[in-house]
Amino acid sequence: MDTGIVGGSGYGGGELLRLLAGHPTLKVRTVAAGSRAGEDLSTVFPHLNTSGTLAPSTPEALEGCDLVFLATPHAVSMALAAPLRDAGATVVDLSGAFRLPAEVFERWYGMDHTAPELTPAVYGLPELNRDAIAGAGLVAGPGCYPTATLLGLKPLAGLVDPASLTIVGMSGSSGAGRGLRDNLHVSHATANTAAYGAPTHRHTPEIEQQWSVLTGADHPVSFTPHLVPQVRGMVVTLNAQLLDATAPEAVPAAFHDAYDTEPFVTVVDGWPESTHVVGANTAHVGAAVDPRTGRVTVSCAIDNLTKGAAGQAVQAANVALGLPETAGLPTMAVYP
Amino acid sequence: MDTGIVGGSGYGGGELLRLLAGHPTLKVRTVAAGSRAGEDLSTVFPHLNTSGTLAPSTPEALEGCDLVFLATPHAVSMALAAPLRDAGATVVDLSGAFRLPAEVFERWYGMDHTAPELTPAVYGLPELNRDAIAGAGLVAGPGCYPTATLLGLKPLAGLVDPASLTIVGMSGSSGAGRGLRDNLHVSHATANTAAYGAPTHRHTPEIEQQWSVLTGADHPVSFTPHLVPQVRGMVVTLNAQLLDATAPEAVPAAFHDAYDTEPFVTVVDGWPESTHVVGANTAHVGAAVDPRTGRVTVSCAIDNLTKGAAGQAVQAANVALGLPETAGLPTMAVYP
Amino acid sequence: MDTGIVGGSGYGGGELLRLLAGHPTLKVRTVAAGSRAGEDLSTVFPHLNTSGTLAPSTPEALEGCDLVFLATPHAVSMALAAPLRDAGATVVDLSGAFRLPAEVFERWYGMDHTAPELTPAVYGLPELNRDAIAGAGLVAGPGCYPTATLLGLKPLAGLVDPASLTIVGMSGSSGAGRGLRDNLHVSHATANTAAYGAPTHRHTPEIEQQWSVLTGADHPVSFTPHLVPQVRGMVVTLNAQLLDATAPEAVPAAFHDAYDTEPFVTVVDGWPESTHVVGANTAHVGAAVDPRTGRVTVSCAIDNLTKGAAGQAVQAANVALGLPETAGLPTMAVYP
Amino acid sequence: MDTGIVGGSGYGGGELLRLLAGHPTLKVRTVAAGSRAGEDLSTVFPHLNTSGTLAPSTPEALEGCDLVFLATPHAVSMALAAPLRDAGATVVDLSGAFRLPAEVFERWYGMDHTAPELTPAVYGLPELNRDAIAGAGLVAGPGCYPTATLLGLKPLAGLVDPASLTIVGMSGSSGAGRGLRDNLHVSHATANTAAYGAPTHRHTPEIEQQWSVLTGADHPVSFTPHLVPQVRGMVVTLNAQLLDATAPEAVPAAFHDAYDTEPFVTVVDGWPESTHVVGANTAHVGAAVDPRTGRVTVSCAIDNLTKGAAGQAVQAANVALGLPETAGLPTMAVYP
Repeated sequence: MDTGIVGGSGYGGGELLRLLAGHPTLKVRTVAAGSRAGEDLSTVFPHLNTSGTLAPSTPEALEGCDLVFLATPHAVSMALAAPLRDAGATVVDLSGAFRLPAEVFERWYGMDHTAPELTPAVYGLPELNRDAIAGAGLVAGPGCYPTATLLGLKPLAGLVDPASLTIVGMSGSSGAGRGLRDNLHVSHATANTAAYGAPTHRHTPEIEQQWSVLTGADHPVSFTPHLVPQVRGMVVTLNAQLLDATAPEAVPAAFHDAYDTEPFVTVVDGWPESTHVVGANTAHVGAAVDPRTGRVTVSCAIDNLTKGAAGQAVQAANVALGLPETAGLPTMAVYP
Repeated sequence: MDTGIVGGSGYGGGELLRLLAGHPTLKVRTVAAGSRAGEDLSTVFPHLNTSGTLAPSTPEALEGCDLVFLATPHAVSMALAAPLRDAGATVVDLSGAFRLPAEVFERWYGMDHTAPELTPAVYGLPELNRDAIAGAGLVAGPGCYPTATLLGLKPLAGLVDPASLTIVGMSGSSGAGRGLRDNLHVSHATANTAAYGAPTHRHTPEIEQQWSVLTGADHPVSFTPHLVPQVRGMVVTLNAQLLDATAPEAVPAAFHDAYDTEPFVTVVDGWPESTHVVGANTAHVGAAVDPRTGRVTVSCAIDNLTKGAAGQAVQAANVALGLPETAGLPTMAVYP
Repeated sequence: MDTGIVGGSGYGGGELLRLLAGHPTLKVRTVAAGSRAGEDLSTVFPHLNTSGTLAPSTPEALEGCDLVFLATPHAVSMALAAPLRDAGATVVDLSGAFRLPAEVFERWYGMDHTAPELTPAVYGLPELNRDAIAGAGLVAGPGCYPTATLLGLKPLAGLVDPASLTIVGMSGSSGAGRGLRDNLHVSHATANTAAYGAPTHRHTPEIEQQWSVLTGADHPVSFTPHLVPQVRGMVVTLNAQLLDATAPEAVPAAFHDAYDTEPFVTVVDGWPESTHVVGANTAHVGAAVDPRTGRVTVSCAIDNLTKGAAGQAVQAANVALGLPETAGLPTMAVYP
Repeated sequence: MDTGIVGGSGYGGGELLRLLAGHPTLKVRTVAAGSRAGEDLSTVFPHLNTSGTLAPSTPEALEGCDLVFLATPHAVSMALAAPLRDAGATVVDLSGAFRLPAEVFERWYGMDHTAPELTPAVYGLPELNRDAIAGAGLVAGPGCYPTATLLGLKPLAGLVDPASLTIVGMSGSSGAGRGLRDNLHVSHATANTAAYGAPTHRHTPEIEQQWSVLTGADHPVSFTPHLVPQVRGMVVTLNAQLLDATAPEAVPAAFHDAYDTEPFVTVVDGWPESTHVVGANTAHVGAAVDPRTGRVTVSCAIDNLTKGAAGQAVQAANVALGLPETAGLPTMAVYP
């Protein structure tokens, strides 16, 4: 199945190339990039040990692709999705362009949506939305924080007061992309932890939208992301009030019910550690009830570039195209 | 003023030695250690570029000291505090031995308290408790997480619902001490973030006790600490419901009221970064109100070994002894 | 082909498990361990997201294996190699037990050799010794430093004065194994660079032995390894006097001659970076001649656990068994 | 003594401010910067917990300063040195502008020298050149690599063949400055080791010049620097042939002779570790003779921003001005 990757010079694109190299069905036909179009992959990503010229990010360059991954800025995704769909390609978008209704997108992202008719696309988190993804033509790959958050939240629906939820995220730097910024200078960031973006981080409405689907109620949530000094890996820790604090055993039962048959989610004893999921398409989740407060704490670890971006996009593509869901996706992390 | 340090082979003891080297009044007379007594400082801590034999951790070895810092395990602190007080020394303890009433200590620490008559000692957080520390003979130096948490909470008292508080901590590894443990192996911990200890971390009742003092109400709080991959520095981020969400401007006003005259606390625009306080006795705090949720988020960064332990102990000693509070304490961090 | 791994609770064993999960022919039948025999893999290595009880490190436990990897301490390898060979298994050893003649081993390793009749085994560096590895029954997997060094040296044979060679190594911590030691405490090692082991590091005679094979001359070499603060990845930089400094163009020509057809070695422009080979079985090498000194500098980067240990062992096993040399081995690194 | 700092928005300038805050005699009167002139220090360097507007980098702005540190680009140093000297100020320059004769500078730095009459200035490494620094009006602060290298080399003069010297450097990222570059992006550099700049690194002629002074012979040297993944701290490891390999005991004797009375240099048993000198103006050196090769290996660790830049500049200023050489300079590192 001929596959295109747009955004091949970014971290998401590089991770897609790594994962697809081991995929039995999806074969990379075209790798496109924006400003680095025309450069060779061996220069752009020496770690891939491969070569090939980056194509321009145009529909024409992607002709003949049955499947296209857009690991692109929001605006590029908005411009490419429609023509690619018209050309018959299945599209999996890793940007924020199609996760929200256009008017919500515009409010949180501060930019016009140029393809509102395609919003919201099918939300590409298979553990929440597998049936809808099957056969979908345009899949909106979830953000990294929403992925970790929603995997932690899914078993809590019905068990907690939806309005009591607070969420703290801790992400490695790779989620911030390849662009140069003062706070990503190695001398500044190597040993630094700091909150950022709160309370207006763009992943907030995405979490709220899916939390609303899970609970049937609309509540704004408090989400505070932090940058922590590692490259890959993120942990999201959330906290909510149990509706029935007298039945704490319902919590582990709900987690095992939700995940024991999922190929990419492991319920751990104790707390998950981000180092255990690096490079793998896996999520580790742990939960504990505090009888003193009647609150439950849940923590979820993923690799933001794999289960949080490129790996999940491949997983969603597998589901969308009717391939085995686990095809090409590593479950063994690179450790230590 | 002749000063003793017990626990001179641990990180807290090492940091005390570094800070007291620049102190105009407190002169180190005796450095004692437990299992490493008899070794030379040049072997135990090559970074100090000094020498001198470590004395045993006995009251006799500390005779003649006007001031003694106990950077020791809880049990050692419990054993030494009374004889040192009897000998007339002012004692500043960095362990958890004297922060709580003995019965609370025993419940959370899982060990008997052998000096209950000294509990709780004066809580050594000058920004909360300056008057009580002045002249005190036994000061209980706060834990690192409670320090960062309580500096973040102090301005919120009266502004938020005390029961709505959730707290997440992120600490560098130096807070875990010098002992060898699997999860502190460099190959495991270098690029790892993980929660630990929740919901029964020992700093929880210490936070609750002071939060109760600040608010006049008793509420259990939810506290989830994490280990993040840096050595020094911690960030605590907390979240609570505003009592009056229509007056968000009360929050920054309260922070500036609380801290504009404090020598060691800086209210920052945006969010504090732990790299900006490494090696300094300073705390950086930031706050933001989310009008959508009516909640306030506060984040506080300190160096867990300086403002979170040894620096604060020196600050408290300065206050206890009537010295200038800032004597010997750096406010400029080692950056980058 | 039924495969056994002994040392399955160490980093080398874990990496073998990760790599063999993607191997088309080699199927893991038995995973054995020493002190952790009886434990489950899900506890020993949560990052593998798999389960299975660790067998004891006995020949009986490995019965039926056509191929056994020994990722074990030297003494265990010495004890297991002969019985496994007698049982008909091909053995690839990752320890230092079989790389050197027994008497050289005893001098440098300070222990008796209990299987001297098997020494030296076929040296398992395919890029130097491919023909001898084919069909071999016992392969001695090279050390990590010798791998990077010898890949850098091979093209220099005949071009430089063998006696003029100096070698400096810089290794991530994973090469030091999973055991707890003071200098591997995360708080000590996270931001530390230091030499160690020189001039008596055990990889020195291994380098000398192969350098002698390459040049036909015996010369002791100067080798100084350093621990640098990363987990995976090592760089070896070496320096030697050119025999004919008037023909510097011979150097790049020799590197391209040696490696342009090698699947796992890339000659880079400029200097190789260890981050570009993490998790891959690849080596990046670069060289530059200094016309002022008439010396050549060569630098080689590998992942010490992959091309420097487990990956190379799989590569050698592929060659030994007549499988495609690249089977199951990733060439795309996990970046960033 | 009124002191000016130019380049106050760079890492060298920030470190000067930190150190001078504890200096008994040198009082900062003016802090100047280039493109960030007009900004406030609290914005430029939040870690300093201080405020004050950055002045422009002009001679006028520095009027009244008895001492000026230039932590500036080479061109700025060339432009400012003469007018500041004319105005009577003692000048300590941290750039490369005045370390070499102008014609050597121009060859290695690829730019014209606009103040050749001031070159070479007095070389500001007190352990090599204390007498010449005393009373000097313009001091050229050494580069970080030359500092570590020359402290390692000084005791070897007369003991080794000068032509046999090879040098490898490993530096933390802070030496590369505050500017944004792809190879300093945190996601690239956090876990990466790589050589760079060889064999034409600008510190090479500086090492050669002083090695020539020490040995009386002119020899080009081979120097290969590496960037290692830490922020502060560097290690230089060098290797040379002993003239008399039968007397290895001369080596430790020479190191102790050279350094036992030096306040900032410690001869360590074993190998020095960069983490032991962070934030201190100290150097740790270790040496070992290999009887097999007749070569000596020396390793030296410094903090590149302190003993390798700002601290050494203060030390040289102390010497130049007749102040106690150790005034204001920490010898206790910030560890861990």
